[in-house]
Amino acid sequence: MKKSNKKNSAAIVVIGNEILSGRTQDVNVSFLANWLNEIGVRVGEVRIIEDQEWSIVSCIREIKKKYKYIFTTGGIGPTHDDITSKSIAKAFKLPYGYHKEAYEILEKYYKKEQFSEGRKKMAKLPKQASLIYNPSSGAPGFIVENVFCLPGVPSILKSMVEGLTNKIAGGKKILSKTLSVNTVESEIAKSLESIQNKNKNIEIGSYPFFRLGKIGVSIVIRSTEKDKIENCSKQIVDFLRERNIKIMNRD
Amino acid sequence: MKKSNKKNSAAIVVIGNEILSGRTQDVNVSFLANWLNEIGVRVGEVRIIEDQEWSIVSCIREIKKKYKYIFTTGGIGPTHDDITSKSIAKAFKLPYGYHKEAYEILEKYYKKEQFSEGRKKMAKLPKQASLIYNPSSGAPGFIVENVFCLPGVPSILKSMVEGLTNKIAGGKKILSKTLSVNTVESEIAKSLESIQNKNKNIEIGSYPFFRLGKIGVSIVIRSTEKDKIENCSKQIVDFLRERNIKIMNRD
Repeated sequence: MKKSNKKNSAAIVVIGNEILSGRTQDVNVSFLANWLNEIGVRVGEVRIIEDQEWSIVSCIREIKKKYKYIFTTGGIGPTHDDITSKSIAKAFKLPYGYHKEAYEILEKYYKKEQFSEGRKKMAKLPKQASLIYNPSSGAPGFIVENVFCLPGVPSILKSMVEGLTNKIAGGKKILSKTLSVNTVESEIAKSLESIQNKNKNIEIGSYPFFRLGKIGVSIVIRSTEKDKIENCSKQIVDFLRERNIKIMNRD
Repeated sequence: MKKSNKKNSAAIVVIGNEILSGRTQDVNVSFLANWLNEIGVRVGEVRIIEDQEWSIVSCIREIKKKYKYIFTTGGIGPTHDDITSKSIAKAFKLPYGYHKEAYEILEKYYKKEQFSEGRKKMAKLPKQASLIYNPSSGAPGFIVENVFCLPGVPSILKSMVEGLTNKIAGGKKILSKTLSVNTVESEIAKSLESIQNKNKNIEIGSYPFFRLGKIGVSIVIRSTEKDKIENCSKQIVDFLRERNIKIMNRD
């Protein structure tokens, strides 16, 4: 069996019972995946886990060897259920305590009387972690080896990711082209399979949709090579024309 | 380290590159989690994996032992990238081929001239799988041991889940109460932690929000016991009153 390709691949670990309980709809995965594709990193796996020390420690220990980069979201705030920093320290067997630079950032950010115990907790990190700066709300994220720890609040996460781009050694941007066609999957399954077999290094996905009273299929072609995408797209367009299947949209 | 409690716990495995690429926003996880909570099953973990045989087989083999129920979404359609059925057969070392009952259902659903190779493929399942009926679009899902395989299209998945409720031996409904308060997390962190420590069997979560120009914290109390939730809620309301923190909303 082929195993995951570590080169330019990442995993995302979403830490939080609020997502597992269904109470909150995660939106960070699609944001991070799109950002990573832009810088040529492919997301190979996502795990959503409980905010329990054992689940974070065992997940990180297992997954950090499989992917070049790991991004965690959630659990770096001031409350009792925010245990990501402590658990990451444990996963890497590092001491956990006040991080000088993080403490100074928070000390400057808050007025003296506002710098409460809860806020001080956000300066407790694994020893030797490097910081991910937070332009929205002070409290930094952090990096230990290949694990990047980000907050769960989407607007804050977005504001922090911008500054990370130069820390990721990605590859070529992952491009995609979508043909939305007016048919059902079973009508095109055989032809698409034969085109996929002729274009081994291209990823062709087929996704049925039902929207605005219309049914159809989105055929998505993905690769880092624009020429290959165009060539594969031409082969698909040719068979669609032959079969009189209407292309509703291209993007 | 405490390990996952298998009793009344489930994992969800989302199969599909369209979610990993960020192109499509998953909505099935929160739907399934809410439905499972209603019937007293707690989601302990979610994995989003590639539609590659090796990733499905290794994930299912690992995770099926850890949880009482596994739900997969996606990859049971007619196209080349729909490989869930074949991969589940491999994970359980079962033969894969035409499933008599599934074939008959699809044969009845389609007109003779419409029952193409692609559509016939949807009747290929692991041997001995039992079916999950599909009131929206014919093609059934299936169950092998503790693994329930559902489609990825949210509207079809929803229509199929209804009929599954009596196949799940859950527990008491998981209840929750949310207090939305006009403060920041660090102001309540210490008091919440002390209440959590006094109420070990209750799960208290704290989630900051930024909406409609307002900031606040949602305190979520979860348990199967209504009395315990009310008692814990009272302790929280008492300290909020003492500290003059306004409760904006309760639900």
